[in-house]
Amino acid sequence: MSVERSIAIFSPGLLGGSLAKTIQQRMPGLEVRVWARRDEAVEEVRQVLPGVIASNDIQEVIQGVSLAVLCMPIQYMPGIAQQIAACELAEDLIVTDVGSVKGGVVGELEGVFMGTKAAFLGSHPMAGSQRTGLANARGDLFHQAACILTPTVHTKPEHLGRLRTFWVKLGCRIQEMTPQQHDHCVARVSHLPHSMAVLTTLAALRQDTRVLDSSAGGFRDTTRVAGGDPDMWAGILMQNRTEVMAALQDASSVMRELLEMLQSMDEEALRRFLAQAKALRDLLPAV
Amino acid sequence: MSVERSIAIFSPGLLGGSLAKTIQQRMPGLEVRVWARRDEAVEEVRQVLPGVIASNDIQEVIQGVSLAVLCMPIQYMPGIAQQIAACELAEDLIVTDVGSVKGGVVGELEGVFMGTKAAFLGSHPMAGSQRTGLANARGDLFHQAACILTPTVHTKPEHLGRLRTFWVKLGCRIQEMTPQQHDHCVARVSHLPHSMAVLTTLAALRQDTRVLDSSAGGFRDTTRVAGGDPDMWAGILMQNRTEVMAALQDASSVMRELLEMLQSMDEEALRRFLAQAKALRDLLPAV
Repeated sequence: MSVERSIAIFSPGLLGGSLAKTIQQRMPGLEVRVWARRDEAVEEVRQVLPGVIASNDIQEVIQGVSLAVLCMPIQYMPGIAQQIAACELAEDLIVTDVGSVKGGVVGELEGVFMGTKAAFLGSHPMAGSQRTGLANARGDLFHQAACILTPTVHTKPEHLGRLRTFWVKLGCRIQEMTPQQHDHCVARVSHLPHSMAVLTTLAALRQDTRVLDSSAGGFRDTTRVAGGDPDMWAGILMQNRTEVMAALQDASSVMRELLEMLQSMDEEALRRFLAQAKALRDLLPAV
Repeated sequence: MSVERSIAIFSPGLLGGSLAKTIQQRMPGLEVRVWARRDEAVEEVRQVLPGVIASNDIQEVIQGVSLAVLCMPIQYMPGIAQQIAACELAEDLIVTDVGSVKGGVVGELEGVFMGTKAAFLGSHPMAGSQRTGLANARGDLFHQAACILTPTVHTKPEHLGRLRTFWVKLGCRIQEMTPQQHDHCVARVSHLPHSMAVLTTLAALRQDTRVLDSSAGGFRDTTRVAGGDPDMWAGILMQNRTEVMAALQDASSVMRELLEMLQSMDEEALRRFLAQAKALRDLLPAV
């Protein structure tokens, strides 16, 4: 049985829609409400997610719920959060999010709810796909995904406990970090790989796309995430720019190492360099 | 019915073993012989590939066959080719390979067979895996893979026709390029992505491997090929170093573009940059 009464999901994209499906599957009986800005989006929610309450009225969606999850691109979160904060809220409301950057956002959203009955506590389930939108929502998106919670000095232990319980029920493995640790870590394992996939795609194909006819699984996998939504990723990379730039500088420095080995034809050094990368990559358990 | 009488495969790794399995499945009745240097490897071939003739005697393996495929790492090809050239060869023998670099190699191997009854003609099936070795050989490895043939002015049209037929029967789509065009193309769609996966792995994990606990599918896919065999890849990158360095310089230049957008906080330019990468990546048909 869940400690939550009802859940409000704000913005039904890939993550919001998958969240609604997963809650319906794994926490049956729990009321799920979905807020979408546009009428057509509200209508699509009713089609794709039978059983949820869909509306574009924030007050109607938030009233009485114990947990609200912000699923829009991070740049729109403060605006929606302020509209939520202006509504009548339940005493026990936790507002969380699924955003990929925490540094500035968590402080700002904590501030928005500081004078209300509710409290903000950041979440980041490490799940997604280059296929975005409600049409691609899946009930297994969070299965065994890492979910990073970013409590601060203002976070009540009871709220942290409830949020852990919620994500665990959805199938996640929980990690706790400060917002700053989160942004460093995620820059390395998500924002850097995303950027490198983009750079690989551009360097491989910008001059001549015909080489694509000869490509195989290596190109496909290495560049997959470059097919992700440009608007969403421009927001993420810009919001986390300090950590992303540091990670890219490190990549630039190992690229210089590689170019020097090739230039000087030092095959033995190249072998050690590749063996070090393999040893690190092999730490990831096979699926 | 095949125009080939019998096929000799030199070195039973992932590619050689997969070739033997695929021939047995798709060209039944054709004699398959496998040469391996070490006695234990010969024994493993007999275990894993029942029905093939396995030996470490080059003369025994090459005698009377109409097609020989060199499947060892490229740096060892000239040595084995010379030993083959010194044997009694069939009048219609075509020697080919599965190597990832063609520039220097094709000229050298053509030269080795120039004074013999046989002729060399380069092949490169774009198939592989980070899981190497005979134990990982698969009968579907070549299914719908691009196979690049690299004829030269010395290539007889009849030989090119026979080699096309052979790879088509194994399930490949055929492309023809000069050895130089091949090396340019493959640097872009294979050697660059491989290098970038290595750089991403090192930049993400060299300082602190604990960030790996938060990684998801994006990191897994973007870095998959960095788990490949360091010996094999050191040989490939070094043999194709001129084209690989040019591709890495292009990647370095797009990386500077990205860093400048982040530095100057030009989110609109970043969005266009990511949208260009997405448009290029979306050219690849979904699987």
